[in-house]
Amino acid sequence: MADYGHALECLRARRPLVQQITNYVAMDIAANAMLAIGASPAMVHAEDEASEFAGLADALTINIGTLSRPWTRAMCAAATAASEAGKPWVLDPVAVGATGFRREAASDLMAIEPAVVRGNASEIRALAGEATTGQGADSTDAVDAAEAAARRLAGSNGAVVAVTGETDFVVAGDRCWRVANGSALMPRVTALGCALTGIIAAFVASGEDAGESVVAGLACYGVAGEIAERDARGPGSFRVAFIDALAGIDADTIRTHANVESA
Amino acid sequence: MADYGHALECLRARRPLVQQITNYVAMDIAANAMLAIGASPAMVHAEDEASEFAGLADALTINIGTLSRPWTRAMCAAATAASEAGKPWVLDPVAVGATGFRREAASDLMAIEPAVVRGNASEIRALAGEATTGQGADSTDAVDAAEAAARRLAGSNGAVVAVTGETDFVVAGDRCWRVANGSALMPRVTALGCALTGIIAAFVASGEDAGESVVAGLACYGVAGEIAERDARGPGSFRVAFIDALAGIDADTIRTHANVESA
Amino acid sequence: MADYGHALECLRARRPLVQQITNYVAMDIAANAMLAIGASPAMVHAEDEASEFAGLADALTINIGTLSRPWTRAMCAAATAASEAGKPWVLDPVAVGATGFRREAASDLMAIEPAVVRGNASEIRALAGEATTGQGADSTDAVDAAEAAARRLAGSNGAVVAVTGETDFVVAGDRCWRVANGSALMPRVTALGCALTGIIAAFVASGEDAGESVVAGLACYGVAGEIAERDARGPGSFRVAFIDALAGIDADTIRTHANVESA
Repeated sequence: MADYGHALECLRARRPLVQQITNYVAMDIAANAMLAIGASPAMVHAEDEASEFAGLADALTINIGTLSRPWTRAMCAAATAASEAGKPWVLDPVAVGATGFRREAASDLMAIEPAVVRGNASEIRALAGEATTGQGADSTDAVDAAEAAARRLAGSNGAVVAVTGETDFVVAGDRCWRVANGSALMPRVTALGCALTGIIAAFVASGEDAGESVVAGLACYGVAGEIAERDARGPGSFRVAFIDALAGIDADTIRTHANVESA
Repeated sequence: MADYGHALECLRARRPLVQQITNYVAMDIAANAMLAIGASPAMVHAEDEASEFAGLADALTINIGTLSRPWTRAMCAAATAASEAGKPWVLDPVAVGATGFRREAASDLMAIEPAVVRGNASEIRALAGEATTGQGADSTDAVDAAEAAARRLAGSNGAVVAVTGETDFVVAGDRCWRVANGSALMPRVTALGCALTGIIAAFVASGEDAGESVVAGLACYGVAGEIAERDARGPGSFRVAFIDALAGIDADTIRTHANVESA
Repeated sequence: MADYGHALECLRARRPLVQQITNYVAMDIAANAMLAIGASPAMVHAEDEASEFAGLADALTINIGTLSRPWTRAMCAAATAASEAGKPWVLDPVAVGATGFRREAASDLMAIEPAVVRGNASEIRALAGEATTGQGADSTDAVDAAEAAARRLAGSNGAVVAVTGETDFVVAGDRCWRVANGSALMPRVTALGCALTGIIAAFVASGEDAGESVVAGLACYGVAGEIAERDARGPGSFRVAFIDALAGIDADTIRTHANVESA
């Protein structure tokens, strides 16, 4: 197993500046999660500056949770600028199966070749063109039902694809991993998946290997969830403890508790 | 008294998908309140998809807190689509008395016949055309000063009208209720009224009778506030405890503590 | 030393209505901070109503954190309306050095003569035309490196200029102050600087002297941070305790703990 604790140390030493074009619901928790773990978030999404900023940042995330026409233009411009500057960018296709507008936006973005795609099982299935019953931001499919879709997406686009849920599944080329960390309270807090997308971008910006960096991000996030759960009395106190845990977690704790296996 | 505990059980069994077109301040707490109680929120407001999504969702809320021209068009389109699909929609006329833009938007929305209107006393009075001194999102009127306005609105539009404050007042046709649950800390946390609008939509989507469903939502929310107050040291810790309470509350607690009377 | 405890009592007696055109990341924490301390926030930013509302409010804040073209127009209209109505307005030039779009927006706003400018050291330096390495919302400069820039801005624009950081520096005409309150956890919570801008506006709207009001706001905020730090286990629990502290703080606590000196 790779040294996922070391990956966290590299992130904190680098303190990557991550541009996040994310949804309105996620902005607060996503920025706080990034500051807690040791990255520097920047929510910059206007057409007038998104692509200029992508040249300054170390990585970019694009999340289609609260999409609108001006934002889709800025998303494509920023993704293109990041790609041209050799910066990794991560796509989070929130509720992509729900409307034609989302399917079209996600399709346009996939053509700009994200380094990583992260979604829940319903989203990854919908992105790969499979029929799914998930309509909102919450998944109605189990992770293993989306493994084939994830492999197909990764094969055709060259992206690392992460399906997150009870046990996460990651595919990068011909390598696969399963990450079995986390807490049942995580889907009870809004936008923790969206915030995870930023954490993944920070790990990818700080590491050598994109696949292993994604796995490190998932393991670190999941272990922080396990720590937070100990003190939580419900989703409200869990959220607070989770931010504390992201800030307090250290490399040895990740080494001890990361539950990762090659698949 | 109706069985408001049973109403909560129906909501959790149904897990309604509620589309929320709400303001930027409210999105985080509104989504977290919905997940905590057991509903599935979806913040979808773009013109390109709001009406399509309204056909998928079980209910819709429209809150004019941070209004803009593109949003008012999407609000009207989504409300129309919800009405045509027979889905209930709830109007939250935030600070409607403050500007001409808000009065016009609220008037356009009232013409699409919401199933429920929820506001504070200043907002309900302004919506009914009465002069009021409330200019921001905080009420400057007592609930009983808005009862006549609420009855008039309910009579002319057929909506259930809820005036929320220290003791809530609800009118549905010729039936009225007063709900005397809650905590003095609730108005000290931003957007708890906006979040309540989503909770009400979730109860209405899960129940038979719109009036009783609104009352159930108010009672459940107020009892959760009373539970949260026990552990709170101020509005910050109250907010956290309140989300925990919404998640932890059960039918028997509501049956024991709901303070509802017909008026 | 002025009586900064009395300044808080004046704020609570006045309960000023503060219009805030702020960024999406900050809206939740900014509104909650305002309610906690005893002010009434109103997030109103649409072109269709921003200037009308500026006539109703007691003060206005403008924060360029998540800028877009329609918002820049509304910002200029609201600032102009506030100035014409004799209401103070406060500029928060988030990440002004990062892109041409931000520099242009900030320059247009400075021409409308804010009563107060508040930023971190990198932002104040960039606003004064100095080269700086700070590109995101986090400062890469120490406060004292921005003192000359602050004096120059204050001299040329007549605004009170506050540079916030480990020890805050304030300049108003030929008077200067240093405020050495606060907690190292404050920059670990997103948008606490943006929220401070609203608190400053509330103090300025409630006091006689703009310079002393800004200092009172900084001292009060910093003392609340010190109180919150005692109970915090990380940035998540710090944020919760900080809102509790803003609500619970009283005049005597500020009188005892304010660490202000004329500079």
